[in-house]
Parts: sequence; C-alpha cells; structure tokens
Amino acid sequence: MEDCIFCKIVKGEIPSYKIYEDEKIFAFMDIQPINPGHILIIPKKHAKLIAELEDEIVGEIFKVAKKINIALRKSGIKSEGINFFLADGKAAGQEVLHVHLHIVPRYKNDGFGFKFPPNYENKPSKDELEKIAKKIRSAF
Amino acid sequence: MEDCIFCKIVKGEIPSYKIYEDEKIFAFMDIQPINPGHILIIPKKHAKLIAELEDEIVGEIFKVAKKINIALRKSGIKSEGINFFLADGKAAGQEVLHVHLHIVPRYKNDGFGFKFPPNYENKPSKDELEKIAKKIRSAF
Repeated sequence: MEDCIFCKIVKGEIPSYKIYEDEKIFAFMDIQPINPGHILIIPKKHAKLIAELEDEIVGEIFKVAKKINIALRKSGIKSEGINFFLADGKAAGQEVLHVHLHIVPRYKNDGFGFKFPPNYENKPSKDELEKIAKKIRSAF
Repeated sequence: MEDCIFCKIVKGEIPSYKIYEDEKIFAFMDIQPINPGHILIIPKKHAKLIAELEDEIVGEIFKVAKKINIALRKSGIKSEGINFFLADGKAAGQEVLHVHLHIVPRYKNDGFGFKFPPNYENKPSKDELEKIAKKIRSAF
C-alpha cells in the first residue's frame, strides 16, 4: 500500500536491518527495541488485520517466528526467553497498520512486563466462562 | 507429559471450556482472563518450547489463532482489537511449561498494557543495530 511504511521497507524504499526474507515473508530489526534483538516479522503483502491474510501466509509467519526464535538463542544475544506478540487493531495497540509479529528476547529483570486490568484477579464464575465459551463457539 | 496441566486438559482429565479442537490443536478459555474471552491455543503434543514443535504444528497454531480471532469479533464479546502473545521460556513469563498462545480481546481503556524497560526510549545507533542483525543472521 502506497503510504505504508512496512510496504516501503519490503520494497527497499526505506532502509531496514533485514534478518530474513522469502517469497512471502520479511523480517527486520525493530529500531526502537524493547530489548536488543527485537525483530518484526511481516507478510510482504499488505494487510492490516490477520483476518485479511490467507491461512498459508498466517502459518508461514509463525514458522518464520520459530526459525528466528532458534537463531536468536544461538546468536549470543542475551536471550533467556522469548516473547511473541501481535496487536490486531488499534485498540490492541497496533501502531503500523500492516500485520506484524514482534519477537522479543527476554532476560530476568529486564524491566519488561504487563500491566493488568483492575479486575484481573477476579476470576469469572463457571457460568460466566461457559456462557462466553458458548458465544465464541457459535461464532465459528 | 504426566504432570502437565495442559496435557491433562487435552485428555479431558481436567475439565476446560473448550473453544476449538482438531487432530493437533486444542483451544480453551483462560480461567483467569485478562479480558472476557481470553483463550489459550495449545498443541496437543507436549512441548515446552516452540523450537521442539514441528513446523507444521507451529503453522497450525497460528492458523487456529486466525480462526479464533475472526470468531471472537463475530461473537458479540467486547473486542475492538485482539492481542496474540506467547511466552517461550520462564524468563519470558512462561508459567505452564507447555507451549500456549494467548488470544486476548482488547478494548479502549481496558487497563491492559506493557511496562517497558528503563532504556526503551534510547534508540540504539545504526552501528549497534547492524551489529546485532549480523549476529542473528549468522545464527540461522
């Protein structure tokens, strides 16, 4: 897409620190890393949301994530654990509107973590969980 | 694995609120949801880390994540966006040592978010980024 920064990176119109490329997938360094070695994996084809991508490409993104996960652990970069995360939609924290999966090396006391909602510790009742599960199952 | 709580859920030895099941994948409600509709997707086969799983299963996990993403948005459950995240290893926050991908419905001001490391705003230099990218590329 013309104004998409990630499409420009794929085309080489904006420089990036490339980590991996194949026919459908591109991966490069996040220039504002949570920890050193933070990588973004994107489909070459523009799509804002996961739902817009073919299943095959969705599967490929995660297979490349596995490859990068293994490479990161071998690379000598500090990485006692690895987080994958993806924001699908602005309300989920998506800033660039081109699907991207974050791969973040983690180590003890690195200062990264989650802030939980105020009601996080209030576990829902069995009835509530079953009601929600039913709604989701009906939507398949 | 004998003492794995997720293996027991797959076998039905521990009850769960099932959302999806196929030959290789199982998905169920997280009983301590970040937001209502929080789901976990797991491979049926026990594996602690992503690196231990066959590529095919890794790809399937993400394809099921797409299916659930679409179902969540259709279900009527509050979901203005969706996060996927996965912790690979204890240092990344992995608590149950059986691979699991979190699918979390999000909405504005839900109180969920990230705490960033103290040096997050200090962007690394081009030289540092290139050096790190080189290390990772050499580890493939």
